[in-house]
Formats: sequence, C-alpha cells, structure tokens
Amino acid sequence: MNKKPLILVTNDDGIVAPGIKALVDIVKEFGEVVVLAPDSPQSGKGHAITLNQPLRMKKRDIFEDIESYECDGTPADCVKLAKNVLLRDRTIDLCVSGINHGSNASINILYSGTMSAAMEASLENIDSVGFSLLDFAFEADFSGAQKVARSIIGNILKEGLRGTKLLNVNIPKLPVEEIKGIKICTQASGMWIEDFQKGEDPRGEEYYWLSGKFIVDEEHKDTDIYWLNQGYASVVPSQHDLTHYKSIAGLGYLEDL
Amino acid sequence: MNKKPLILVTNDDGIVAPGIKALVDIVKEFGEVVVLAPDSPQSGKGHAITLNQPLRMKKRDIFEDIESYECDGTPADCVKLAKNVLLRDRTIDLCVSGINHGSNASINILYSGTMSAAMEASLENIDSVGFSLLDFAFEADFSGAQKVARSIIGNILKEGLRGTKLLNVNIPKLPVEEIKGIKICTQASGMWIEDFQKGEDPRGEEYYWLSGKFIVDEEHKDTDIYWLNQGYASVVPSQHDLTHYKSIAGLGYLEDL
Repeated sequence: MNKKPLILVTNDDGIVAPGIKALVDIVKEFGEVVVLAPDSPQSGKGHAITLNQPLRMKKRDIFEDIESYECDGTPADCVKLAKNVLLRDRTIDLCVSGINHGSNASINILYSGTMSAAMEASLENIDSVGFSLLDFAFEADFSGAQKVARSIIGNILKEGLRGTKLLNVNIPKLPVEEIKGIKICTQASGMWIEDFQKGEDPRGEEYYWLSGKFIVDEEHKDTDIYWLNQGYASVVPSQHDLTHYKSIAGLGYLEDL
Repeated sequence: MNKKPLILVTNDDGIVAPGIKALVDIVKEFGEVVVLAPDSPQSGKGHAITLNQPLRMKKRDIFEDIESYECDGTPADCVKLAKNVLLRDRTIDLCVSGINHGSNASINILYSGTMSAAMEASLENIDSVGFSLLDFAFEADFSGAQKVARSIIGNILKEGLRGTKLLNVNIPKLPVEEIKGIKICTQASGMWIEDFQKGEDPRGEEYYWLSGKFIVDEEHKDTDIYWLNQGYASVVPSQHDLTHYKSIAGLGYLEDL
C-alpha cells in the first residue's frame, strides 16, 4: 500500500470510552484516521440498526488531530453512516472496532455491538477487525491489547487480510509482558446460564434484570476461550454466512408441502 | 412425542402484529402454546439484549385461550425471559418466531429481531424456527405462510429437527395456491446499497435516515433468494458458529507478536 491508508474507527462503548482512545492511539501510527462512534454506550446491541428514526451525526473534538464524529445510533449505524455519508467518495482501507471493555469471545460475538460494527464493515467489503479486552473496568489497562492491536494492524496493512474480511480479536486481562502470543483459532461453543434478578421498583412494579454466568464447552482445544485461558490473544476469522451446510442433506423431509 | 409439546411463540413486530396472530393460529393445532413477545415493534434490532435496564413482563389477554405475555425488551430478551423465568421449570419443545412482516432472507438474518429470537432459543438448545413473509404490509395475506408453517412445524414435531437447531424460513409474497413448494437451501450472498435520506428537522437540525436497496449475488442457484424468486418457500438451516474455517490455515502471519 503506497498511499497512507484510510482507517475508520468505531466502538460500542461510546466515543468517550477509554478503549476507543487506546485504539486511536495505535491506528494513528499507521494511516489517516477517522472516528465515527456512538454518543452513548451500546453494549449488547448486537447487529441492531435504526430504521424508524433519523440519525444525527456531530463533529466532536475529542482526539488530538483526529477527525471525529459521534452519532446517536448503534455501532452498525455508525459504519453505515461512515461508508455512505461521511466517507462516501473515499475508499476505507480498514475498519477497526473497540477496544471493547469486556470479552467478545465465543458466542458473545452475536450480542456484541463492537463485533457487529466490524461485521457491518465486512458486509460493505471493508477489511475489518474487532478488538476486545477481557476486562469490563472503565479504567482497564489497555497496554497489552494495544500491543496486540499494533501487531495485527501492522501485519494486515503490510500483507492484506487473507481469505477473510473479518477478525474477532480478544485479549486476556494480563500485564503486557505476560501475554504469551497470538493464536488463530475457532469460536468456542458456550452458553449463558441466565439468572434474572427479580425486584420491585420504587412504585411497587415487578422487574427482571438480566444476569448470568457463561459456561464454555472445554472439550475442544483450538478455541478462542482455550487460548485466552492459556494467556494468548485469540483471533477468530469470522463470516456472515450462517448456513449450517452439514445439515442440508438430511433435511429433505421438510420439503413436503 | 407422546405428551402435548410446549411451543413458545415470539416475534419482532410486537405482540399485536397480525403476523404473530397468524402463527399462533397454526401452532395451537399442535400443542400447548405460550406467547412472550415484545410490546412494541423491534424490527432491525438484531441480536440486541438489554443489560443496563430492568425488563417488565405483563400478562396480556390477546389470543383466545392462549397464555400470553408482553415484555418491554428485545426479541432475544423475550426468549431469555421465557426460558429462565416464565417457563423455567418446564421443557420448551419448540420455539417459533414470526411470522415476520418482511424478508429475512440472505444476510438480513443478521439484522433481524425475528431470527435473533430464534437464534437465542437455539443457543438455549431449543429447536427453533423463524418464519418471514416477503410482504411488509400490516394487512399482508398470511395464508401461504401459514400453509408452509403448518407443514414444517408438523414435520419437525413428528420427525425432530435433524442435524441443526435453527431454521430460517422465508415465504414468497404469493397467493397460497401459487406457492410451488419448499426448498432446503443456503443463505444468499448480498448487500445493501445504502442511500441515506438527508433532511432538516423542524428545529433546523440535520438528520440522516437509512434507506437503500438490496443487491443479491445471482451467480449461485441453490440460495434462499433464488428459490424465493422461483415461487418456493426457502429453508436455510442456520448456526451460531461464525468461524470462517477455510481461512484459518492461511492466517499464520498474524500470529507474530
């Protein structure tokens, strides 16, 4: 790539989250950076898009010398606006989303606004990477995640992103010197065991508040959660084709009408 | 299945949409039906879940002789509440979502609240089917979709759902007698070409409103959109593992740290 690459940055924790600042500080070493991110936290918003309301986009002066905008929509909305309005006459070379405060390993990719923004960019044919740190804290230490992001982004800009358009990168909650390396791997099977907290609001109305713990299938070794537990950052090449090809041949009995 | 199966019904157009009524009218022929659906339209909400607010669930008397509840969350929230609160001591034999007013073929599965509810049930290990009619109209004719749903649900309850936990079923907008049959097929490649409508609100503030048209890759024949265009209902067995296995071997260059 001879010209300076154009890199779009977004996230789901909102434009003022420390995680996006940590990511901007890395990508600005590599090219021209434009930020378009939600104006409020959008965790767990999945691949939601805004159909029935208009979106607002405003220039914000948040990152030194970086063009940045906030939008009142979802992470996927941000990417659509960036591609089709803000940067419509330019080619986005790479989209990075994050650094998320919290894990998006295993099936959490499905609930994740961070990963859905990256997925949306991949649907628009833009190479795209979501970065997530396994630490929910607002004041998390992003230095290990920054080291991993610098390495992966550098390699993608040098070599291209081969054979896929989308990476789900998770980084363990470890001091930077204790991260053992990076592993290309598969999405772990797992599920949430939910435990809604039942309560009463100040007006005596019942409510249910989602809580739960995550159970992972530990039988398989080459998964994101396996390697994260071993102290490695995980990289899962991901895709938007949800077809379960293996089951097609056996489903002919459903074709009777 | 000897005992009467327990069937959970949800949707994303809201509990008062005609599509869910059309689906309830079919499933009640097959078993005990419980409805838990959003209290407002949730189209395009993808796999969003509600983390930072409590949920409210209220009994509603909408469908004759059918136990039904509404919830102020997303479609995926409805399934989590049904599984873990409302029906926590029982086994849900099948979850059906829809009938959606509008297509969820191709990549639209990713944006779809209807399909995300079904996906959520499949993550909870419940056989699950999302039904969508290619007609956005509130007053759409659901008789063709009902015929397809009756056939598929009957076959699943008789034979089980083999090799997959999740089906994405779309039905063409045709009079019931013109639907040619049902085809098991793959998710079509396609993309939205967006065209945001730019406007000014009554206070002179700029807004952008999402619009666009869908472009499908017509090279492949065995896809949902191909068969829908031929007058068939499409059934795509779907999954939650987004790993792009084919690209794993070629991504070793990203492991350098």
